[in-house]
Amino acid sequence: MKGIKIFSPATVANLACGFDVIGLALDFPKDEIFLYKSNKPGIRINKIHGTSLPNDPKKNVAFVALQFFLKKFQQKFENEKKIGFEIELIKNIHPGSGIGSSAASAAGVVYGANILLGNPFTNIQLIRFAMEGERVASGTAHADNVAPAIMGGVTLVRSYKPLDITKLHTPNKLWVSIIHPQIEIKTSDAREILKQKILMTDAIIQWGNIGALVAGLYQEDYGLISRSLEDVIVEPIRSMLIPAFYELKMKCKEIGALGGGISGSGPSVFMLSKGTHIAKKVTEVMNHVYSPLKVDYKTYTSPINQQGVQWAKIL
Amino acid sequence: MKGIKIFSPATVANLACGFDVIGLALDFPKDEIFLYKSNKPGIRINKIHGTSLPNDPKKNVAFVALQFFLKKFQQKFENEKKIGFEIELIKNIHPGSGIGSSAASAAGVVYGANILLGNPFTNIQLIRFAMEGERVASGTAHADNVAPAIMGGVTLVRSYKPLDITKLHTPNKLWVSIIHPQIEIKTSDAREILKQKILMTDAIIQWGNIGALVAGLYQEDYGLISRSLEDVIVEPIRSMLIPAFYELKMKCKEIGALGGGISGSGPSVFMLSKGTHIAKKVTEVMNHVYSPLKVDYKTYTSPINQQGVQWAKIL
Repeated sequence: MKGIKIFSPATVANLACGFDVIGLALDFPKDEIFLYKSNKPGIRINKIHGTSLPNDPKKNVAFVALQFFLKKFQQKFENEKKIGFEIELIKNIHPGSGIGSSAASAAGVVYGANILLGNPFTNIQLIRFAMEGERVASGTAHADNVAPAIMGGVTLVRSYKPLDITKLHTPNKLWVSIIHPQIEIKTSDAREILKQKILMTDAIIQWGNIGALVAGLYQEDYGLISRSLEDVIVEPIRSMLIPAFYELKMKCKEIGALGGGISGSGPSVFMLSKGTHIAKKVTEVMNHVYSPLKVDYKTYTSPINQQGVQWAKIL
Repeated sequence: MKGIKIFSPATVANLACGFDVIGLALDFPKDEIFLYKSNKPGIRINKIHGTSLPNDPKKNVAFVALQFFLKKFQQKFENEKKIGFEIELIKNIHPGSGIGSSAASAAGVVYGANILLGNPFTNIQLIRFAMEGERVASGTAHADNVAPAIMGGVTLVRSYKPLDITKLHTPNKLWVSIIHPQIEIKTSDAREILKQKILMTDAIIQWGNIGALVAGLYQEDYGLISRSLEDVIVEPIRSMLIPAFYELKMKCKEIGALGGGISGSGPSVFMLSKGTHIAKKVTEVMNHVYSPLKVDYKTYTSPINQQGVQWAKIL
């Protein structure tokens, strides 16, 4: 096998109370990546469709993640010197949208390369390589987008040292509505406005909610999931960066959304719902709230993607 | 039915990373309470065995909780004026031990009174009444001991306003070892030494752990439970109040304990283990660490009590 086509999903990190630890994978949108193994050493990005990404390879997430993968592969198998990759990226997930565009690129290429080389690495190793791509994109090697992109479903990052990630049980009627207001919020800026210290009383509320959210997912208790989707620490600060955030949230919940919040560091906003029907109505409400505003936007309705990144053989 | 005997369990609150939100019920030790319905209005505590508790009824946890119960009962059923209770308490759980002595009294009497009066109240209402007893004992109406005492198992208090409590799934091989060093730590003092503000980075570690602990319980993944039983916020401060805390913890984990921490606000220390055999060895290690110290202590080994408070008819 010399070439594969990879579908790499958008992801929602910072799942309300699960700030920095819980993320999930979506079925839509997803990037398409064509990855070819080559006998010519080095990594070459031949084409990028759909957006402009850095030409400088050191700043390109897919390049950096794959370079890290290749370095580790060649440390493991010392005779494998003549390996290179050719990449073609079709970016359907807009960079800067807050739904894991960089993670999709990074996760996609390392997952694909692993298949092409006979699966030498585990998922947790692939996540670690993809995190190096994230470091280029946002300044920190966070795992809360690449983990669900690679493992699928809803994932929890318990710890970074050592890296400890669990795929949580998810009720199958859980759907996601997303609105991506096309304004720019840099992850680094969104980080800077957060406080370094928080009230103990707020932290306790947050970890009560996160415990209950995890319990709600395992028990398939949509009421408990709904009550737990509350973020008393980050949302009150970051929401000011997103037009009509509270109106959006209120109206989505009125129509039946379980709850939601800011996706990643924004500007996208996500809402969870029980079942396709309500999720579609929630997305309609998102459109309705944003259509009078002078802001371009896109909306998506998607089930949770249980498989994560997928591939098809092409050569 | 005029009289019942109640067995009300000891409980462990502040389950490591689950500070202020997760607690569990034990099979041993447990208090015994004899409760009689009377036609003579008022509440009378006739005897207390095993310890000295406040004579002033307003400071007695069982009295206050039952008084609150009775007030709510008479608000609900306006004709029921001629109801009173007689109480006899056999305290096997030492007050100030940190394993829910006051909660056992409060939970026991309201649970028993509810049976005697034909179950007019739900568990969540009983927890609320018992919390009024806790307010007398420690200054705050916390629920993290009375909830597991009444519901059994491992409970999570998601929120106080409104009161929202979930009983979590628990793997049936989970056992608890307890050591109660007989030194005095007042809950109010243990609260005062805590910081009002904490680092965001620490809070994120804590809620990663609590999410993973809940996931570990549902998945019956003892490894994940073990890795999650970490408290980076409260334990580093409160542990200084407990003799040989870190030696105790280290040696218990060496022999096979999954992990543990301070029970409630101390001075008791708990350790969780997989299975009776390891739990008993862990308790032996506790004895071994404490026997050279000039501190009296007691140890217990118990499975998790899935039923919580229980009763038997006596009249």
